[in-house]
Amino acid sequence: MIEFEAFFSRSARTAERSTIRELLKLAGRGNVVSFAGGLPDPETFPVDELRAVADEVLRTDAARALQYGTTEGDPRLRAQLAAWMAKDGLQVAPDDILITTGSQQALDLVGRVLLEPGDAIVCELPSYLGGLQAFRAYQVEMVGVRQDDEGMAPADLAEALRRLARAGRRPKFIYVVPDFQNPSGITWTQERREQLLALAGEFGTLIVEDNPYREMRFAGMAPPPIAALDRAGRTLYLSTFSKTLAPGLRIGWLAGPAAVIERCVTAKQAMDLCGPALTQAIAAALLARGGLLTRLPEVVARYRRKCTAMLEALEREMPPGVTWTRPEGGLFLWVRLPEGLDAGAMLQPALAEGVAYVPGQAFHCDGGGRNTMRLNFSYPTEAQIAEGIARLARLVRRESAPAIHTIHRRGTTVSD
Amino acid sequence: MIEFEAFFSRSARTAERSTIRELLKLAGRGNVVSFAGGLPDPETFPVDELRAVADEVLRTDAARALQYGTTEGDPRLRAQLAAWMAKDGLQVAPDDILITTGSQQALDLVGRVLLEPGDAIVCELPSYLGGLQAFRAYQVEMVGVRQDDEGMAPADLAEALRRLARAGRRPKFIYVVPDFQNPSGITWTQERREQLLALAGEFGTLIVEDNPYREMRFAGMAPPPIAALDRAGRTLYLSTFSKTLAPGLRIGWLAGPAAVIERCVTAKQAMDLCGPALTQAIAAALLARGGLLTRLPEVVARYRRKCTAMLEALEREMPPGVTWTRPEGGLFLWVRLPEGLDAGAMLQPALAEGVAYVPGQAFHCDGGGRNTMRLNFSYPTEAQIAEGIARLARLVRRESAPAIHTIHRRGTTVSD
Repeated sequence: MIEFEAFFSRSARTAERSTIRELLKLAGRGNVVSFAGGLPDPETFPVDELRAVADEVLRTDAARALQYGTTEGDPRLRAQLAAWMAKDGLQVAPDDILITTGSQQALDLVGRVLLEPGDAIVCELPSYLGGLQAFRAYQVEMVGVRQDDEGMAPADLAEALRRLARAGRRPKFIYVVPDFQNPSGITWTQERREQLLALAGEFGTLIVEDNPYREMRFAGMAPPPIAALDRAGRTLYLSTFSKTLAPGLRIGWLAGPAAVIERCVTAKQAMDLCGPALTQAIAAALLARGGLLTRLPEVVARYRRKCTAMLEALEREMPPGVTWTRPEGGLFLWVRLPEGLDAGAMLQPALAEGVAYVPGQAFHCDGGGRNTMRLNFSYPTEAQIAEGIARLARLVRRESAPAIHTIHRRGTTVSD
Repeated sequence: MIEFEAFFSRSARTAERSTIRELLKLAGRGNVVSFAGGLPDPETFPVDELRAVADEVLRTDAARALQYGTTEGDPRLRAQLAAWMAKDGLQVAPDDILITTGSQQALDLVGRVLLEPGDAIVCELPSYLGGLQAFRAYQVEMVGVRQDDEGMAPADLAEALRRLARAGRRPKFIYVVPDFQNPSGITWTQERREQLLALAGEFGTLIVEDNPYREMRFAGMAPPPIAALDRAGRTLYLSTFSKTLAPGLRIGWLAGPAAVIERCVTAKQAMDLCGPALTQAIAAALLARGGLLTRLPEVVARYRRKCTAMLEALEREMPPGVTWTRPEGGLFLWVRLPEGLDAGAMLQPALAEGVAYVPGQAFHCDGGGRNTMRLNFSYPTEAQIAEGIARLARLVRRESAPAIHTIHRRGTTVSD
């Protein structure tokens, strides 16, 4: 029997399996309504168009679409992406775009190229779990900064940067998801974006702007991306077609200063040589047809309805003391339970009740957020949303007031 | 102006761009016959079958094929891969297989999960460049062991392991490409495979068996894979459909002990969440049809013809003192020039002459192999092979004997 433990790297020994992923397995069973995943609604996938495009690519361009590609990615797709980004005021040359396996690979690449064990980075409280996992693998110290309804609190950010500077440290970057954040659903105001850029400039650090949901806006006005406001060129911009098109193609990308992209290309060479030419050719051909933008309003309308359904159900069902965010877009909202309740400990009973979510603590690099949870509204149907929130509210009432609950429960048992 | 250099990790600062990749760009120009790449012949891609299968997948299974998948990979494909491996005597459960973006990502995963800066690994002299790049990113010491016509020389391997043991070190693994090695074309005999397993057992280390070309055998008898001879379970087995099907799908995989695969799954979660469900569904459906094995003989026959064409051209054109391997399969052969010639220095004149190759030094972790080169015979046509080898031989003659060359050159100029 070989003792494999002795062979594992420090990175492997410290990595934990994702709570979300493990939950997705449990939540897939039986009658559970799952608000745990982050899956887009499969009804939004442009199946017929993808069939037509896949066939066209294999009919007319197979020798290229089935061959090795360049590490940087399909040049046609990079040109399309530069045009796609321009609609948001992002002026990027195709050469400064690197195509990745979802934006998760872009996060890993950023870690690989910029992070050394012991480095500091700054992130939001709460923050995207996949980002935390990607950076944690490089054994860095993550400094969390509190969010309010308008984004990261600038006084707290300034204080965190000053504290690091006093210790002779400069964080490698500040990691943010400024539009309909995963997990909180919060969108940064333009003022906060400008304050972030000013502070990053003052303390000489970079910004990693992870922006997978930007097109999924169903209310309010869109402030410009941070990268579009950045005149110093300190922002790396990450995005993906997982929400606008389909995750199954795994088309993400990273855009940024040439010096950084060049290092990322070299790193990606060692990591996978190149991504699949086939999925890239399909995405490029689909974008060339120009249909992606015109179909987005329908997708966005669908998510607006689902978000509204969830907000109405929360309004209807939740007891006093429970609060939640009201996202202007995206796939998630964020629930805060009364202090003293522990969303992590409530998960097993919730699954027994037939509802799943992700406990908020997973998104806090400082171990906080015990009384919070992330709810996904893009995947469940409106009927499931109503039923799932009712189940969740029953559980919250029971957990908030055990004595009252017992009476209530007896009552319902009688009336069943 | 931001000084990005100060932000880069040690891994990023030490990584070099791949010689092969840079060459591929140069060699793609004009009239150059390129033996530099490692591309399969696009004539071998089963385009019509892939068209039919892609259409079937998108018609019948789009909600799954366009959605996020599990990190481990499509369960149907993993089941197909277990069956595919069984034909070579490899008994692997689907759960012990992890699907990767080409086998390059499997190499990176092995590095991520097993390697710590300063660790030692053992590899062949010469060795696959992509493997060296993957492991170099983890800042390890690579101990090269000489190859002869039958594989790694066992006395040299034993000596390398003893020297490490005397220094209190145990290499994390021995990395080998035992079938039609890239770059040398050499196949390990069964005896050598068994000696490797015995030495790995004696010194308590693991084996990474990278086997992308196994199905591409056009002469001789196949010895079993090392993993099939391994009764202790110390071998990680890597393979890919890039040569048997098409690289554009980027379907590779890693099979091994459950304890290692589990860590690799966790690491891959942080690296890209999951690979594209679409390409995996296509590969699974193609394998389920059962047509892949039956079409291989035609692919193999094509590569046999091309290899023969290259061997005959070398025989015909090369001056005395030049030797080469005679592969029983795969995509490459290996040329040794007379001592004193430098294949690296000859590359610019070769490109001017209209022929490209990869200098052998790139494949040597110890900086050796200056008078060697790797030639690819799978991609060029038979006519290009004849012409390219004639150009290469002209250059070799010129570089070996400048005086004679001058006379010869004058002669040909007159007769032009």
